[in-house]
Order: sequence, then C-alpha cells, then structure tokens
Amino acid sequence: MFAKNTMLKYVSFLALCSLSLIYRSEGFGQEVTKQVFIDARQLTMIGKVPHNGSSYHRLDMAAIKDLPKAVQVLATKSAGLAISFQTNSSKISAKWCTGAGGPTDNMTAIAFEGMDLYIKRDDRWQYAGVARPKAHDCNTVEIVANMAPGEKTCLLFLPTYDETISLQIGIDSAATIAPASNPFKKNIIIYGSSIVQGASASRPGLAYPARLSRETGLNFINLGFSGNAKMEASVANLISNLSMDALILDCVPNPSPEEVLARTANFVTTIRKKHPKIPIIAIQSVAREMGNFNTQVADRVLLKDRYFETKIKKLQKQDKNLYLIYADGLLGNDQEGTTDGIHPNDLGFDRMLHKIRPVIVKILSRYGI
Amino acid sequence: MFAKNTMLKYVSFLALCSLSLIYRSEGFGQEVTKQVFIDARQLTMIGKVPHNGSSYHRLDMAAIKDLPKAVQVLATKSAGLAISFQTNSSKISAKWCTGAGGPTDNMTAIAFEGMDLYIKRDDRWQYAGVARPKAHDCNTVEIVANMAPGEKTCLLFLPTYDETISLQIGIDSAATIAPASNPFKKNIIIYGSSIVQGASASRPGLAYPARLSRETGLNFINLGFSGNAKMEASVANLISNLSMDALILDCVPNPSPEEVLARTANFVTTIRKKHPKIPIIAIQSVAREMGNFNTQVADRVLLKDRYFETKIKKLQKQDKNLYLIYADGLLGNDQEGTTDGIHPNDLGFDRMLHKIRPVIVKILSRYGI
Repeated sequence: MFAKNTMLKYVSFLALCSLSLIYRSEGFGQEVTKQVFIDARQLTMIGKVPHNGSSYHRLDMAAIKDLPKAVQVLATKSAGLAISFQTNSSKISAKWCTGAGGPTDNMTAIAFEGMDLYIKRDDRWQYAGVARPKAHDCNTVEIVANMAPGEKTCLLFLPTYDETISLQIGIDSAATIAPASNPFKKNIIIYGSSIVQGASASRPGLAYPARLSRETGLNFINLGFSGNAKMEASVANLISNLSMDALILDCVPNPSPEEVLARTANFVTTIRKKHPKIPIIAIQSVAREMGNFNTQVADRVLLKDRYFETKIKKLQKQDKNLYLIYADGLLGNDQEGTTDGIHPNDLGFDRMLHKIRPVIVKILSRYGI
Repeated sequence: MFAKNTMLKYVSFLALCSLSLIYRSEGFGQEVTKQVFIDARQLTMIGKVPHNGSSYHRLDMAAIKDLPKAVQVLATKSAGLAISFQTNSSKISAKWCTGAGGPTDNMTAIAFEGMDLYIKRDDRWQYAGVARPKAHDCNTVEIVANMAPGEKTCLLFLPTYDETISLQIGIDSAATIAPASNPFKKNIIIYGSSIVQGASASRPGLAYPARLSRETGLNFINLGFSGNAKMEASVANLISNLSMDALILDCVPNPSPEEVLARTANFVTTIRKKHPKIPIIAIQSVAREMGNFNTQVADRVLLKDRYFETKIKKLQKQDKNLYLIYADGLLGNDQEGTTDGIHPNDLGFDRMLHKIRPVIVKILSRYGI
C-alpha cells in the first residue's frame, strides 16, 4: 500500500502530473477540456496483500517462484485492487495500459480490462462511471463528468482479468487530488477460483469480494486464481505466511474430486498452524448450471461438495474456528444466475451474497471483526 | 415461421443432414462422437415477425427501405429469435456463422454472437448450455452433452447483436430431431432501445423480452434497435402494419427530450389507428446510473421521462387502452444493476422484471391475453 496514513497529502502537480488535452466523448455538446494526469501509485492502493513487487500484481512475483506457473501468471492480474483517493474535480478520467489480450467469451471487456469508479455519498459507495477499454492495450477515457462541486472520496476498481501495467487518473487542471485512507478495516483473504477472481461479473466492482468490501466495510482481499485454485501445498504455504484476520476458502470449483479428497486437510492445517485462532470459512462449490442436464457434470460437482464437506467436518472436530457454508441455493432456483452454466452473472452473485454475507458477517463479529 | 403445426414431422436425415465428426471439448474424458447436423430452417423459428425476407432477419429488408439506415442494419441482428425443436439426442451441438464483428465493451461474446439453450422440464424452461463463439465468424461447438435418455423440447436463443448468417444443430447420429410447436401464445411486440435488444444481458436468453416469454408463456417479439429507437414516423408506419395482440413501448432511452416531446403522440396514434383496441403499454426510461453523479445526464433522463409522461397522459384522455409504467425503482436502489451506467446487467433486468412483469400480465389478462 502506498499511503497508509489518513492525512490528506495534497500532491505536487508539478512533480507528478503530465498535462494533457482529452476530448470529451460523453455528455452534452462537445468540448476540449484541460485535464492533468497523476500516477495512481501516488494515491492509495487497497485490496492488496502488502508486498515489495510490482504495484499492480497481487503477489510479489520474485517471492512466489515455487507456486504453479498458472497461479504465478494469474497473480499478475489486478483482480480486487482499487485506488482510493479524494478530489474536487468535476470530471475524472483514466489513462491506463493492460496486457494485449482481450476478454474471454463469458466476460465483458469492461470487467476483463476496464475499470469502474465508486464515490461515497450518504455513507454508501455509489456507482459513478466506467472506464471503457476501446483498445486491448492502452486507453484514455472519461469516467464521469459534470459532477456537482465539492470534495469526493473515490474508489476505482482495476481490471479483474488483465494485468494493469500503468494507470494515471485525470482531473480538471484546476482541481486537487490526494490519497484517501483505506476505507475498509481488517484483512480477510478469499482464496478461490475464477468466481472469486470476478468471472462473470459485468464490471470489476461487481466481483463478489469487491461487493463484500463495500457492503460490510471490511477489507476482502481477492486471491481468486481462475481455473487454478487447486489447494496445492505450495499455495497453502504461501497463504499461511500472509497476514490476515480471517480466511475464506471458495476453492471447490477447480480441483478434481480426488484432489479435494487428497488436499483439503493439508491445505487447512498448513494455514491453521500459522494462524491458530482466526476464523476460516469454507464454502462448497456453487451449482454448475451446465449440470442441469449434463448428468456427469452434476454428479461430479455433488461428489466434490460431498468430499469437501466430509473433510471439513472431520477437521471441525479439532478446530472450533473452522466453518462450512453449504452450496444449496447459492445461485437461486431458477437457473438464470450464470452466464455460461459455470460462472455466476451479476444476478447469481447477488443471490450468493444474500446468502453468504450475513453468515460471514455473523461469524466475523464473534471475533471482533 | 417455418413450421406452424404441432405435429412432429420427423425430418429425413438423408435429405437434410450433413454428417460430420466433431470433437468433444467439454466433459469427462475425450472421445470422438459422430454427430449429424440439420439446418435450423427446417425447425421452428419463434419470436419473429412473419415475413418473406432472410430467415434470421427480424424484418424483411426489401420491405423496410424507408426506415432509417441504422434501424435497417439493426433489423438484420437476430435478437429475440429462437429455434424450437424436439430431440432425443444425448448431446446437442451448433455450427453457426455470424457477421465478422465482435462484442462491444459492455457485452459478452456469448450474448453478442453466441447462443443459449433451454430445455423444458417440470413445466418450466431450464437453462441447458451455451454455444460459445470461439471465433467472430463461424463456430462449431458442443452446447450440452451426457443428457439422460428421453425426448426433450428445446429452445435455442440466437445472437442478440450479430447477424445470424447460418445455423445447423448437431445431434447424435442415431437420434431424431423435429420441429416443435411455438411454445408461446399470442404476439406482443416490444419496441425499444439496446435494453430491449439485449444489452447488457450476459447471454441471449436473459434479454428481458426472452425472459418474459419463458416466464409468462406469451410470445414477446423483440424489436429493440440499439441506440435507434427514436419513434420516427417511418417506424410508426412499419409497426402499425404488423399483426399483434399488444404493444410495449420502451423507447424513451434513445430520443432526445425534444424528440420525445415531438414524436410520442404521432407514434402512438399512428399505430392506434390500425389497432384500435389492443393494449399499448408505455414504459418510462430506466435510470441511467451514469447520472448518479453526472448531473447533466440525470437531468436529461428526468426531462425525457417527464415529457413522455405528459404526452402519454394527454393521449390517455382519449385512449382507455393506453397504459404507463413509471421508471421509479426499475433497477433497484443500490445502483449495482447496470454494466456501464446505461444498460441493465442481469441483476438490473431481474429487478426490472419483478416490477414490470406483474403489471404487464395484469393488463394483458384484461384483454384475454
């Protein structure tokens, strides 16, 4: 995290900004407005495991060389990271570069490589605008314009599935911008699959860990590794060495039934040794709606959930701080809650949150979190 | 529509099928399965205004040359069209070609140029699988496999934003396939913007007219013209000449406030002359969440909604079959119901349906619909 104190340190524009002209693409009438751009690394990064590596990587690549290769690559994607800042600008823009790839067939480009902005109003985070990726590499776009005067506390969620290579935030040339404090308390790590990473939310801020943070005021850290949350021993070691107040395990979707059976106990106990009293909340896999008619898929998910339940229940006999949330009804009962029969859409995530959020909040509150 | 009767006409495979080998990309283990492909034009097309033009166009291009150019182009996109068929195949595949373009930043490729399949079970349409577009032009993919034996009634929703150029449906070589009857009764046309056409539902079957059809058993016909539902006189003439039992107007999002003021009365009265007694249900614009902080956007939407209300209320004095649904709360109150501040996501559509569906159903029932 770049700025840990809450004091408003107004940044020197002469030192940090590049003066640019950007063209208004939205709104009423067309005008050319002077904007200044500030490097987001001068503001406050949130949702991130503290480390000394690249700013927009979720983990320090130099320190994770023993993790599976796919997990290493996925750790470079900026899922769950957000920039917290204050500004009195009437308009906010972004100039950012990501990797050259584009979205998978089940995601929007906005979610994959774009961003969305929230502003706090009436003690609530409210959607303010999106940064639309027009190209797959570098873009400069307006996120929101024509805002009423006054100081605003902002939160900009970074791309969930692409690597963020650079990011500058644009404001009116006469406006001020400064790092804001981290609005979220404590550290709750969520380890899981693509569903944790953010597929198929329609924009980054709708990934379920991001929604949990805004809705609870707690800091949920996104360690979702698309297709690769397989509870390997090296990943258990890595997570066990992280600082955290609680841990959520949403990692049944990716491993095979045999891997669930073989790895769950070691995964939990490895982390438990280093964190003897934190709450660990395990969640069964959401329904794979592609199993509605594909009987093999349905059987396989049920088997994995049953193996996971068996393993967690066995561990619970020795571990009073280990909890299990059952999958039943997580996505509702009309089968309309996924994009592709695998990944929840925004409706599925909303239903899932209605079920898991109160359970998570209740458990955490017992620990003073 | 290709097959209007409900009798199962089992199709001669010798005449209609091309025998192909397709490779299983999903499931457990890998095997090469013989599949036969049948041209979807031999099955039942639903959700379409009857016309003599190209099978997968929503309107007959030869007959709409006086419409605005953009509307003509949009009429070639297959939004709301679906193929109804019966089969006892254990696996269903698709081989289809669309236009060469790819999705906009606020849509998934599955919604833009892919398809999704529903199967009727327990008297309800249930999600069965998606046809993922791997390329932007032509694809052959498995939609669902490993199904239990037995006859299934299927509904395959076509791409919402791309032109469907050709479509073949693949089944096991030993299986049968036949046109099914249109499962939806009556004809209710919905004229509107991108929101009607299907942006930003995550897949075609989640566009709100498609959901309305499955949930009510009524045939909602998608005349959503992205960015171009501006109530032009030529469009009013075209719609007035269509056969319909009811009409829904969700066309406030695209026109300017001045166009709403100038065109609403003429649009409604032109259609009313040809359909003196059908229910016409007008809906205000959903909230544009990009107006949460952009005061100009917020003011503009409010102005359009007010103008529309004024015009509809004036017409209602002479027209007892004209109804108005207010926009208030259509997308909920947490501002999480859109993909980009403009288009509802699946959560927004779900909230919208919870509000408008019972009102629409109640009004239609008064007319025996």
